[in-house]
Amino acid sequence: MTDYQWIERGGVTTAQGYAAGAVAAGIKTSGKKDMALVVSATKASLGATFTTNQVKAAPVKLSMEHAKKGEVRAVILNAGNANACTGLRGINDAKSMVQEVATKLGCKRHEVLVCSTGRIGIPLPMAKVKRGIGKLFNKLAVSGGKTAAKAIMTSDTYPKECAASLQIDGKTVVIGGMAKGAGMIHPNMATMLACITTDAAIEKKLLVKLTGECVERSFNRISVDGDTSTNDTVIVLSNGAAGHPVMEKNHPELAKFEAVLTEVMRKLARMIIEDGEGITKVVELTIQGARNNLDAKRAAESIARSPLVKSSWCGNDPNWGRLMDAIGYSAAQVKEEMIDIYYNGLIGVKGGLASSTPMSRLRKEVRNRNFSITIDLHQGKGCYSLLVNDLTEEYVTLNKGE
Amino acid sequence: MTDYQWIERGGVTTAQGYAAGAVAAGIKTSGKKDMALVVSATKASLGATFTTNQVKAAPVKLSMEHAKKGEVRAVILNAGNANACTGLRGINDAKSMVQEVATKLGCKRHEVLVCSTGRIGIPLPMAKVKRGIGKLFNKLAVSGGKTAAKAIMTSDTYPKECAASLQIDGKTVVIGGMAKGAGMIHPNMATMLACITTDAAIEKKLLVKLTGECVERSFNRISVDGDTSTNDTVIVLSNGAAGHPVMEKNHPELAKFEAVLTEVMRKLARMIIEDGEGITKVVELTIQGARNNLDAKRAAESIARSPLVKSSWCGNDPNWGRLMDAIGYSAAQVKEEMIDIYYNGLIGVKGGLASSTPMSRLRKEVRNRNFSITIDLHQGKGCYSLLVNDLTEEYVTLNKGE
Repeated sequence: MTDYQWIERGGVTTAQGYAAGAVAAGIKTSGKKDMALVVSATKASLGATFTTNQVKAAPVKLSMEHAKKGEVRAVILNAGNANACTGLRGINDAKSMVQEVATKLGCKRHEVLVCSTGRIGIPLPMAKVKRGIGKLFNKLAVSGGKTAAKAIMTSDTYPKECAASLQIDGKTVVIGGMAKGAGMIHPNMATMLACITTDAAIEKKLLVKLTGECVERSFNRISVDGDTSTNDTVIVLSNGAAGHPVMEKNHPELAKFEAVLTEVMRKLARMIIEDGEGITKVVELTIQGARNNLDAKRAAESIARSPLVKSSWCGNDPNWGRLMDAIGYSAAQVKEEMIDIYYNGLIGVKGGLASSTPMSRLRKEVRNRNFSITIDLHQGKGCYSLLVNDLTEEYVTLNKGE
Repeated sequence: MTDYQWIERGGVTTAQGYAAGAVAAGIKTSGKKDMALVVSATKASLGATFTTNQVKAAPVKLSMEHAKKGEVRAVILNAGNANACTGLRGINDAKSMVQEVATKLGCKRHEVLVCSTGRIGIPLPMAKVKRGIGKLFNKLAVSGGKTAAKAIMTSDTYPKECAASLQIDGKTVVIGGMAKGAGMIHPNMATMLACITTDAAIEKKLLVKLTGECVERSFNRISVDGDTSTNDTVIVLSNGAAGHPVMEKNHPELAKFEAVLTEVMRKLARMIIEDGEGITKVVELTIQGARNNLDAKRAAESIARSPLVKSSWCGNDPNWGRLMDAIGYSAAQVKEEMIDIYYNGLIGVKGGLASSTPMSRLRKEVRNRNFSITIDLHQGKGCYSLLVNDLTEEYVTLNKGE
């Protein structure tokens, strides 16, 4: 067992040597806080993953460039405007944001990353943004995690943050972070921003590798609506303030660190899915017995994208017929007569046919806000899990207009 | 121009030598008509396409077998129960339906096809079904097209039928048909049944080929919700009652026949999409300038499956940012700065950026029930078109429960 503890009210500034702040710069029409700044007191190592969408927002393009250096002092974030599909002007605006922060901090430009989220296709109101950045430096505080987590919210209904502590070389190390999510969430991330900070010391290349692997097991395993956004970014900062020697790949406690980093990301990912737009259900979907892991993933994602399946959950309807249908048109190899389907461990389908479990019994499980569906294809050893929401009238209402 | 005429109130029995009938057998809990029979007076040639779903309903499996012979006298159809995921019992039930019809008609079993649509996973109430088949033979009439079209409806709000006439070798030929659709409609069909009859005479293999090609240009170009059902079937019967010599592949009027068959299928497909569950919009989506046709299809289907894009249409919101996003995460090769997007021919996006067309002007187009979106990727000559619905609260309401 990995020995670690959750820290109550922990967040992006719980680890040593980090400060954050937020302001209302006027980007959100609501007048709510819409800009946040996270700063490390000393130069931190960086791990980051970005959207796989071919249409990338300006801040993503710029941050990808900066991430190559693997050194970071600050992350500047805004909500209310994605600075996506904004062309050369968008790139220049992202560069200006970075320049402002770098000048004030006295660091190199490549030591600043930038994240934006919100509406696509409209240029940032740069006068407001620049004034906002100026004010942000007066707001920086080691207690600033929560206000920063609030400022990056778009349709989120609550801020998403957590932190955990563990021991490395006898020193207490903290890993904490914040995220925003809600709509447009699908594997390979989707307008989803996460900023994670740790006071552990990790060799630069190792941190990059760890970040990718942990994201794969956490943020890439949630699906709200199958859309992958132009702005998805997960950033991990590691500044070494905990004071242990730098961890290299053979460090005996590396696996423990990786496990806790995964748990922190999973907790943030879970919060994102629990706060999906208008949702009433969070389903832990597992495909097992697939020909291989890729097939398991294909079957899971086919289900996760089916509006018919997801509508049925909203109506407390197990409707395994729609699951069979969605598996059948996926690219996974399946044999109808081999498929078993379980709801919270109760068998609903045995060998492709209705089991003896009464439908009323299955319905009872599906009435819960959280339940699991496990599908065994009996084709091999491939396995894949995903957290999936239902599709509700409220989701449509929230997304149909401005 | 192809010279043909639509026949008012035409349907599946408008062509010579066909009769149809319908009864309420008690499969639908509503007590509405739920079984239909279409009979050709003489042995007809057969063209048919079936669902690509790996999970195929029993009637699909059986009809695929029978279709190999290419000869057909009758099609027996029921709504209210899909006879899918019903195992060996389901196969035997489908066989019994065929046997009942073949005995009564005095034809071979392989000359009868069977189609079912409705809920998955529940065995057919065979006593009711058999009594229904018995009664159907008393209802057969050359005026029975409309009642048959009504009987195969599930969540359809109106029966879908049409017929057109053209001249072949100086003889008047009719092509008519009926279809049911509504939910679960996506390219490669989806609980969508269509039965088309013609009194033209066509060589057997040629009819099979024509059917596949015409389906590709019609029923496979509509998308309600991206789900592909276990039961999709399109059947074309050709009995030669018009009296012209059998058309072979070099017949000078073959292209004309194919064009009209395509138009009949397109008309039925259009009715299906216009009657999509809870929809308020029908969008003619065209991708052009793709690297190739496959890339164009990928981009179109990515958009057609995006709940974010489809919700925005429901709210009269052009939201081209979501289109850019959906194109970007498709498997099609795109360059953001090359993309142009038109709404009803009005340019909304030029080179990946907002055009000078005011958003209010674009919004006006999207407020229509029917509008077109054309996206030019400027990557090559690939092209693909699709009819797509919006996603509405009503869709979810209709699909969330029993």
